[in-house]
Amino acid sequence: MDNAPAPSLHDTIRRMGERAVAASRALATLSTRKKNLILEAMADALDADRARILAANARDMAAGRDAGLADAMLDRLHLTDARLDGVINAVRSLVGLRDPVGREIARWTRPNGLLIRKMRVPLGVIGIIYEARPNVTVDAAALCFKASNAVILRGGREALQTNIALAEALQRGGAAKGLPPDSIQLISVTDHDAVRELVRLEGLVDLVIPRGGERLIRTVAEQARVPVIKHYKGVCHVYVDKAADPEMALSIIENAKCSRPGVCNALEKVLVHRDIAPSFLPLLAERLRARRVELRGDEAACAAVPGLVPATDADWDAEYLDLVLAVKVVDGVQAAIDHINRHGSHHSDSIITADAKARDQFLQQVDSACVYVNASTRFTDGGEFGLGAEIGISTDKLHARGPMALEELTTYKYQITGNGQIRV
Amino acid sequence: MDNAPAPSLHDTIRRMGERAVAASRALATLSTRKKNLILEAMADALDADRARILAANARDMAAGRDAGLADAMLDRLHLTDARLDGVINAVRSLVGLRDPVGREIARWTRPNGLLIRKMRVPLGVIGIIYEARPNVTVDAAALCFKASNAVILRGGREALQTNIALAEALQRGGAAKGLPPDSIQLISVTDHDAVRELVRLEGLVDLVIPRGGERLIRTVAEQARVPVIKHYKGVCHVYVDKAADPEMALSIIENAKCSRPGVCNALEKVLVHRDIAPSFLPLLAERLRARRVELRGDEAACAAVPGLVPATDADWDAEYLDLVLAVKVVDGVQAAIDHINRHGSHHSDSIITADAKARDQFLQQVDSACVYVNASTRFTDGGEFGLGAEIGISTDKLHARGPMALEELTTYKYQITGNGQIRV
Repeated sequence: MDNAPAPSLHDTIRRMGERAVAASRALATLSTRKKNLILEAMADALDADRARILAANARDMAAGRDAGLADAMLDRLHLTDARLDGVINAVRSLVGLRDPVGREIARWTRPNGLLIRKMRVPLGVIGIIYEARPNVTVDAAALCFKASNAVILRGGREALQTNIALAEALQRGGAAKGLPPDSIQLISVTDHDAVRELVRLEGLVDLVIPRGGERLIRTVAEQARVPVIKHYKGVCHVYVDKAADPEMALSIIENAKCSRPGVCNALEKVLVHRDIAPSFLPLLAERLRARRVELRGDEAACAAVPGLVPATDADWDAEYLDLVLAVKVVDGVQAAIDHINRHGSHHSDSIITADAKARDQFLQQVDSACVYVNASTRFTDGGEFGLGAEIGISTDKLHARGPMALEELTTYKYQITGNGQIRV
Repeated sequence: MDNAPAPSLHDTIRRMGERAVAASRALATLSTRKKNLILEAMADALDADRARILAANARDMAAGRDAGLADAMLDRLHLTDARLDGVINAVRSLVGLRDPVGREIARWTRPNGLLIRKMRVPLGVIGIIYEARPNVTVDAAALCFKASNAVILRGGREALQTNIALAEALQRGGAAKGLPPDSIQLISVTDHDAVRELVRLEGLVDLVIPRGGERLIRTVAEQARVPVIKHYKGVCHVYVDKAADPEMALSIIENAKCSRPGVCNALEKVLVHRDIAPSFLPLLAERLRARRVELRGDEAACAAVPGLVPATDADWDAEYLDLVLAVKVVDGVQAAIDHINRHGSHHSDSIITADAKARDQFLQQVDSACVYVNASTRFTDGGEFGLGAEIGISTDKLHARGPMALEELTTYKYQITGNGQIRV
C-alpha cells in the first residue's frame, strides 16, 4: 500500500471523471448545428487568445531550454503564428465533416413486430494522454467534441502553460455558444500518478487513447483498467514480388521511405523475391543512396549489392523513423507474408505485383490494418482515406483498426420499439 | 516477485498462445463451405462420443457432490442426453448462419484512383474463461470457429473431465474434415494462475471474454493485458410513464420479471411516474404477488401499497436474479433516465408510454446497450434479435455492445489497391 497515491490526487481525478460523465450526458443531446457553432466559436477564441497562447508557449520553451530539453523535443513544443493558424484551421475543418452521432446504422423488424434500430451514439468520456506537441490539446478536444464526447486531456508537463492557455480558449469560446461545462478538462497537476488515476476510472472513462512513444503507450496499457486503443509503432513493409514492375516498385519504395521518414506509415523494410533480387537490388541501392538512405541487408541482399551494411536480427523488428532501410531476400509471397506477420506491427504493408494470385494471397493473409497493392504505405491516414481528421492510427484490432476518425470515436446502441411485446 | 508463476505454467500457456496464432493463420483462409462441413463433423463426433461424454460428466458430478457443491452449481454442471442434444443442435444451427468473414463492409475510390475496401476479417485468437456449464465449451468453440478464430478455452475445474471429453470430440471430428491443428485448445491445468497467464498473452491473444459471475469477470479485467469484453450483470429497469397503458405495463413487467428471473435480461427495478403511482402500484402489487414476487419499495411506493418491504440504498444497484423486484416512484422521465444511468448496468431498460416526447427522450438519453419502448427487456438476446447464436451480452461500449454474435467476433482491415500511387 506504500504506492497508494495521496488521497487528494485520487479524489481530484475522480471528480474530474464524474464531471466529465455529467458533461457527456448533456453533450449527447446537442444537435449537429449547435456543435458546429461551438466549433467555430472555439476557433475564434483561439484566434482572439493568440498573444496569450504564444506568450505561454514562450514560457514553456524557456523552461524547456533551462531544463536541457533536446532540440527535437523543443521543436515539437514550439508554437508559432503559422502553427497556431494550422491548429485553428483544423478546428474549423471539423465543421464540414459529417456528424456520425444519431445515424441509423441498420434497422429491421422482427416477426413479432419489434422494430430494432442500431444507432450510432457517442462513446461518452475519452481520456487522451500525450506528450510534447500542444496541437494535440486542440485537435483531440475538438475531434472528441464533434463526436459528442467529453474529454479529459493529459499533456506533457513541458507543455503545461501552453496547454492551459489553449484549453482555456476552447472552454471560454465554447461556453459562449452553449458548450456544456466540463466537456473539455485538462489535468494540470504534473504528478505522474495522475495518469494512473485517470486510466483506472472504471465506470467513468469509456476509452483512453495514449499518443506518443512506445514507452508512454506501454505504461498506459499496463496500468489501465479502462479500455485503451493503442497506436503503436509502424514497422511497415513493401514486398517486391517477382511479377513486380521494377520502376513502380522503386518509385513506391522511395516515396514510402523518404517522403517523411519520421512518421508511423513510413517504410522500414523491403522484402524482395529471390528470382529478381540480382537485377532489382542494385537499382534499389542506386535509387536510395541518391536520397542518402542507409541500406542494411540480409546475407543474400549483401551478396547482390556490394557495400550494404549487414543487418542483425534486431533490424527486422526495428522502427527506425529515419533514413535507414533494411532489405531481405525471400523465397516468395508466402515467405513474405510470414515474415510480415511475425516481425511487422500490423500497421501498413504493401505488395508490388502484377500477379493476381500473389496479390489476393497477400491481401487475405497479411494481418495488418492496411494492406496495399501497388501503392505507397504513406496513404494510411484519415485524410488520405477520405475519412477527415483522425485522432491517430490504431494498431489494435478491437473497435478501431487503422485510421481512427470521428466514427471510431462513437459506439452504438439498440433502440427497440414495440407495442406491448413480451417474450414467450 | 514471490507471486511469479512457475516457469513451466508460464511456458505452457504461452506455447498454447503461439500454436493458436499459427492455427488462426490457417483458419483465416478456410472457405465458408469447408467451415460448415467441419461444423457438421464436429456435431457428428459429439453424437458419436455421447457415452464417453456423459460418463466423464458423471465423474465430474460425483466429484462435485463429494466436494459439497451447491445444488444450483451441480445443476449447471449436469449434462443429460437431452442437454447434449441441445448442445449438438446448437452446433448444427451455426451451419445456416451467414459467415461474416470476407464480407465487404464498404468500398470507395479516391480521386487518385486508389480503391479502398473495408473487409471483415477474423479477430484471430480468442480466449474464453467460464465457469461450471460445460455447454459453453462447445458453444464458444463452435461460434469462434465459424468466425474463423482460434479459441483457447478455460472452463471451471469442476467440469474438467466433461470439458476434456467435449473438446476431444470437437477436435477429432473437425480434424477429419480439415480443421487446422490447435484451432480449439482447452487449458486442462487447474492452477488458478493459468487464467492470469492467458490474459497476459499480449501479441498472441486478441480478445478475452469472461463468462460467469461478477467476481470472475472482475478478476479477469484486473489481471488482463489483452482486450477484454465484459458481460457484467443486468440491472434492468422498466419505467412506467404517466402516459403508459397500465395493462401493457403490467404484462411487460410480469414477463420481464417472472419468465426467467435468473438471467441477465430479467427485470430488477420498476420506476413509476408519481402521478399514476397511487392507481398503478396496487395493481402491480396484486399482479406480482400472484406470481410470488417479493416487492421492495421506496417511501412513496410503500405509502401507496400496504405491506411492501422498505427498500434500502443497496437495493437500487442490486441484481437479484430471483423473484424480487424493487419499485421506486419518480417525478418524470428525466428523473427515470437519471436514476437508470446512475444505478443501472447499461444493459437493457424499457419505457412504457404512449407519449412520443417521453419516448424519444428516453431512447436518446438512456445510456444502455438496449433501450426499449413498450416491450419486455427479455428480448435482449442474439436469437430474439435475429442475429443467431450469441457468445454473450456485452455491457462494454467498445467493439461490441449488447448481444455479441458472429459479426462481433470479427474485426476489419482495409485492402487498398492501386497502380503505382505515391503520396505527394
